Amino acid sequence: MKAAIFRGGDIVVDTIPEPVPAQNQALVKVLACGICGSDLHAAKHSHRMVEVTKRVSGRVPMDLTRDVVMGHEFCCEVIDYGPKTEKKLKPGARVCSMPLMLEADGPKSMAYSNTYVGGYAQQMLLSVPLMLEVPNGLATDHAALTEPLAVGVHAVEKGALAGDEAPLVVGCGPVGLAVIAALRLKNIRPIVAADFSPKRRELAVKMGADIVVDPAKEDPYAKLAAGKRAAIFECVGVPGLIEQTMEKAPRDARIIVVGVCMERDTIEPMFGIMKELSLQFVLGYTPEEFARSLRLLAEGQVDAPSLITAKIGLDGVKGAFGDLGNPERHTKILVEPWR
Amino acid sequence: MKAAIFRGGDIVVDTIPEPVPAQNQALVKVLACGICGSDLHAAKHSHRMVEVTKRVSGRVPMDLTRDVVMGHEFCCEVIDYGPKTEKKLKPGARVCSMPLMLEADGPKSMAYSNTYVGGYAQQMLLSVPLMLEVPNGLATDHAALTEPLAVGVHAVEKGALAGDEAPLVVGCGPVGLAVIAALRLKNIRPIVAADFSPKRRELAVKMGADIVVDPAKEDPYAKLAAGKRAAIFECVGVPGLIEQTMEKAPRDARIIVVGVCMERDTIEPMFGIMKELSLQFVLGYTPEEFARSLRLLAEGQVDAPSLITAKIGLDGVKGAFGDLGNPERHTKILVEPWR
Repeated sequence: MKAAIFRGGDIVVDTIPEPVPAQNQALVKVLACGICGSDLHAAKHSHRMVEVTKRVSGRVPMDLTRDVVMGHEFCCEVIDYGPKTEKKLKPGARVCSMPLMLEADGPKSMAYSNTYVGGYAQQMLLSVPLMLEVPNGLATDHAALTEPLAVGVHAVEKGALAGDEAPLVVGCGPVGLAVIAALRLKNIRPIVAADFSPKRRELAVKMGADIVVDPAKEDPYAKLAAGKRAAIFECVGVPGLIEQTMEKAPRDARIIVVGVCMERDTIEPMFGIMKELSLQFVLGYTPEEFARSLRLLAEGQVDAPSLITAKIGLDGVKGAFGDLGNPERHTKILVEPWR
Repeated sequence: MKAAIFRGGDIVVDTIPEPVPAQNQALVKVLACGICGSDLHAAKHSHRMVEVTKRVSGRVPMDLTRDVVMGHEFCCEVIDYGPKTEKKLKPGARVCSMPLMLEADGPKSMAYSNTYVGGYAQQMLLSVPLMLEVPNGLATDHAALTEPLAVGVHAVEKGALAGDEAPLVVGCGPVGLAVIAALRLKNIRPIVAADFSPKRRELAVKMGADIVVDPAKEDPYAKLAAGKRAAIFECVGVPGLIEQTMEKAPRDARIIVVGVCMERDTIEPMFGIMKELSLQFVLGYTPEEFARSLRLLAEGQVDAPSLITAKIGLDGVKGAFGDLGNPERHTKILVEPWR
């Protein structure tokens, strides 16, 4: 089968062996897979990602001298099952799944892995217990947005805003937009959102932001509802943003760090101390949040079509990694490996 | 009157004019004033402290080309009152106060100020509404510990540990010891405490720690109660400690940053992200917490005598700033400016 492979720091399209499902695994055809900002970060900072994961967890997620096939925002179609496996859904059924593979000793990552390919391949394996059927009537493209929406849903759950807290979303890339959608779904308003890009601000409004701000022209913090405590979602994830947010945050603010900054970073602790700030780092989602996100998309509660700006084949993945740097042109690019 | 003055980056004893109380102010004699680690930090990083305060609050706390008299952990004796001021307590009464001066446009700092001297002087001014009488039977020396104890009480209140959280106190200087005392008073146990110094570990036990660890020999994090979420009080306040705590903290831990690091610092955001850590920076205390701390000392609920390792006159302040660097010798040094 064909795949867009992260090999030697580059993305190349090549033929690799089709995966063979083991017990409790399904072989699926990838129908669509979104390109995530984390993939771009991972490609740029792959060695750091491996090093930090090793320091935190003690395990090496992937060997960068070997092939890695990324892609963790997928919607697939069931082809077949491994031996001695319950045929949970018929071949042809469309499914989503958290990007994890269950093994006897615990879940293993896929996509950032040498063992389990992600969705930038024509076929992949899924753990049968994690597979969720895509409800009838939900377009494949929109089902592929389940994973990024779940990131926003989780950040808002973990943020656990109280009634006296007012949200500000800093950065309206796919993560910030998912946070805005999740805030709106919980009716936590007014939602202030800030981004330098006009296109991204337009999408922020579509996702449910009440007030959008161009930080080059106005101070987003001045738009926060008076008398409320600020809950700031940092959705940019580049060096300097945590400190900048800490400097600008009002007293007693909570900062929910959703952006994934893979580089070491500098902060001024005194900004936090003098204003008694709190920082909550968040990552991923729970199985319940993932399933809920799929349901919310199926119910049409999120303006999914607005987020998808292009669909490409495997040959386009390398170029898309570059194109996603321009917020005016692209938000979510879907890969259709069967093309 | 005589005072130990922070002048041109040095501490010198000199004569300065006696302060004159305005309306709603009392003139008091300083009976005892503890030396705080923040004073040592402030002396070492005075320009940074001014710069960061200005960036955060927009105001300049003090002009370093002019005299500053520090000292914010004081117990005093009422001498006289300003004009048109209610004589709340008789002359001779002993009082404590939060180190703030109330003015028409809000509270102003004292001690880190060119306007209001702190307790390293023979006399000072207090805001009458903030004065609290020292209960009969509470020794002056112990009443002077109200302020540092309040820092621990506040950190524990702000930490708001849930029943499924287990505390670890990193660093057993005066701040860490106050946190331990405050945890014990709320019966949040078992309390694990870590310090390289044998003397400080001994004091940690006296303050109520259940398990003390020398981090050079054992891993304090391994001593945390199994099955509970970690609530780690970072009570060191030097560069590198926040990152080190983030690296060592278990998944879902909360880090309460009580130590006051006045330098810019480096962190690895991925440690926070991968483990979904939270950081809560804390500072100071509320008026209620300050009053409660005085009451707790009066009730004998904290082993105050163990904390005081020396009493000196104004001539000893400069030397004490150096001596406090040795955790084996000193914990809290009290200045008695009347000597």
